[in-house]
Amino acid sequence: MNVVSQAQIEQWDKSDPLGAKRLEFSLPKDVIYLDGNSLGAMPSVATEHAKHVLEQQWANDLIISWNKHKWIDLPLAVGEKIARLIGAASGQVICCDSTSINLFKVLSSAMALQKTRSVVLSLSGNFPTDLYMVEGLASVLGQDACKVKWVDEDILESALTTDVAVLMLTQVDFRSGRLLNMERLTNLAHQKGILVVWDLAHSAGALPIALDECQVDFAVGCGYKYLNGGPGAPAFLYVAKRHQKNVSQPLKGWMGHKRPFAFAGHYQPAEDINQYLCGTPNVISMSILEAALDVFADVNMHQLREKSVALSELFIALVQKEPQLNELSLASPIPAELRGSQLAFRHKHAHGICQALIKHGVIADFRAPDTLRFGFTPLYTRYQDIAKCVNILTNIISQKIYQHPEFNVQQKVT
Amino acid sequence: MNVVSQAQIEQWDKSDPLGAKRLEFSLPKDVIYLDGNSLGAMPSVATEHAKHVLEQQWANDLIISWNKHKWIDLPLAVGEKIARLIGAASGQVICCDSTSINLFKVLSSAMALQKTRSVVLSLSGNFPTDLYMVEGLASVLGQDACKVKWVDEDILESALTTDVAVLMLTQVDFRSGRLLNMERLTNLAHQKGILVVWDLAHSAGALPIALDECQVDFAVGCGYKYLNGGPGAPAFLYVAKRHQKNVSQPLKGWMGHKRPFAFAGHYQPAEDINQYLCGTPNVISMSILEAALDVFADVNMHQLREKSVALSELFIALVQKEPQLNELSLASPIPAELRGSQLAFRHKHAHGICQALIKHGVIADFRAPDTLRFGFTPLYTRYQDIAKCVNILTNIISQKIYQHPEFNVQQKVT
Repeated sequence: MNVVSQAQIEQWDKSDPLGAKRLEFSLPKDVIYLDGNSLGAMPSVATEHAKHVLEQQWANDLIISWNKHKWIDLPLAVGEKIARLIGAASGQVICCDSTSINLFKVLSSAMALQKTRSVVLSLSGNFPTDLYMVEGLASVLGQDACKVKWVDEDILESALTTDVAVLMLTQVDFRSGRLLNMERLTNLAHQKGILVVWDLAHSAGALPIALDECQVDFAVGCGYKYLNGGPGAPAFLYVAKRHQKNVSQPLKGWMGHKRPFAFAGHYQPAEDINQYLCGTPNVISMSILEAALDVFADVNMHQLREKSVALSELFIALVQKEPQLNELSLASPIPAELRGSQLAFRHKHAHGICQALIKHGVIADFRAPDTLRFGFTPLYTRYQDIAKCVNILTNIISQKIYQHPEFNVQQKVT
Repeated sequence: MNVVSQAQIEQWDKSDPLGAKRLEFSLPKDVIYLDGNSLGAMPSVATEHAKHVLEQQWANDLIISWNKHKWIDLPLAVGEKIARLIGAASGQVICCDSTSINLFKVLSSAMALQKTRSVVLSLSGNFPTDLYMVEGLASVLGQDACKVKWVDEDILESALTTDVAVLMLTQVDFRSGRLLNMERLTNLAHQKGILVVWDLAHSAGALPIALDECQVDFAVGCGYKYLNGGPGAPAFLYVAKRHQKNVSQPLKGWMGHKRPFAFAGHYQPAEDINQYLCGTPNVISMSILEAALDVFADVNMHQLREKSVALSELFIALVQKEPQLNELSLASPIPAELRGSQLAFRHKHAHGICQALIKHGVIADFRAPDTLRFGFTPLYTRYQDIAKCVNILTNIISQKIYQHPEFNVQQKVT
């Protein structure tokens, strides 16, 4: 991409087939929001739906709502709506708990299937909670039954050896936006008898995913990033149909029982994906997520990916053509096919720059020690947002605005 | 209590010191709601607060809200508000996840403290999820390290032997409303070196609880029953200060890390109650629970208990004086000091009666095979509600209305 004119950018927004989707979100005026990879913006339907769930369902219909408004079916109903976005046929996805808790469940299942192997392999740069949850599982299974092995990406494929029980990967790296090849890695792992768990936190809703086609074994993901389910929205998990008859998981709460309302004295797991439920579903948050997912109902995920790539490429091109931005070094892969829907740049004053960006109406985010992240949500990010963001960034860096005492504070890591 | 006149009942409502609290709830007209032990009614502030959290915090302030609106502090802030209701000093209660998940965490902690013992003792009539979660923990720790032992209440005290690691009890029985003596049982258990886990699902918000005073080790509880936090509201857990330096728990998510935003490669638990957090807190639901808890701010829990006892005693007296209700047998203890804030009656047509009650504007609930439960929430249940409910019940039973085909359907246990 060479020089891009303002007119060209306006034209892209005008002819954007997803352009109208932005109208379905409640975005603050005069803010360019490039942090949907951390917390998705609010679909306008969320407030209306929340009001309905509170006033009509909870306040008015009270306990009757479990049947009347199908609260009891929410985890599966929401799961089915997510399934469509991640390439999963019916009956394999359920909405519940948090990504961390769901990882614990599917990791436990995978380890139990692998009777003679004990190593969980992952990348050292994986999102910390993923690595921590394996440490947690090892603390109950015992270090002999569950050994953690974290490697760098360059030696990942050679680390796929026959002592590995489970390969646990996040499809899009939370820092760099690096997109792993799900099909290839799943296939290589399977060739060595390794089961695969994919974390889709930074990819579900951001790009087309084909879990069934890639023959993935287990997956988990997040409801509040690209799925726009609201802060701390319930998460989801996927268990391939072929495993469902043979699996178990240790968080044996009553909602995962074959007949929860029989109040039986001993646990008998549901024979389907419902066995991954544990406690009572969080109805209010899950209902809001369900409404948010309806925004995707008429979205073609390949079209969404095209726009995501175009937004990212525009960002890189505009940064590259601006000599005053050469202090920024791209920390994301250069080929678009190796990236998710976010870009990372390094700068030693990244923290101050991020604070200054916020002050100037651009919400991006900072990851210690020196990384700026910009997330692109094709449902509401416009080409003009990218152009404006790069202009503001240029101003902040060229004028060293980040050195202003207001922004140049010691970064807090709590 | 002998014959009670209508005038007397009206007078009780008029002079009820908690009478005005009912105005803080959005209750449907012409419905007598006696199922707050299953799902608390909605405090009116919930809709207003939800709107604020969605429109101002999520939609407008977006990711900035984690600091600006102190989302990150919610689990502890809500925990502190619950602490006041359960007799816990500051820093011992945190709001997170579901009751089932929280049980898994505190049971794991307790078992890890008890290095040479392996038995978890509970009552066979305990709420199923409690028993199931122990089975789940045993499935990862191994049957040698975690043996379940469920006994009937009449032999509970004699089962407190020195091989028992953990005594896990629910303070108020979900079926009968039986209230256990927390102080006595905790004390007896401690005399044998047993750690105690109390489930407060049916007692928190319903009666005064004194966790610190009783020297309880661990507790969990539910946000959506007497705390009125909304369907599937986040739960809570308590860990006595004296244990906090020595405990660990296996659901090692990033929010329980000492410095979550350092994104360190290995898990280091927070040194306080925060180590019981796992994934990202569910902000929307937790905020609604927080608003709901403010309804308790000026409530004296002893006064609330007095009213709860008076409501229950009135119910029993009215049932007893009505000869046509002698088909009902009380399944709750007779002395008020042995009951929580609910009553259970047995009747072979309990299912049909419950359906007919709902049709006639009284929401109670049914537990298979033959139990009717009536829950009393002193914050919004009136004495006149009790009188009306017993009148309607009398009509349904004396006229055998429950035999109408509409109500006499085969009960479904899904």
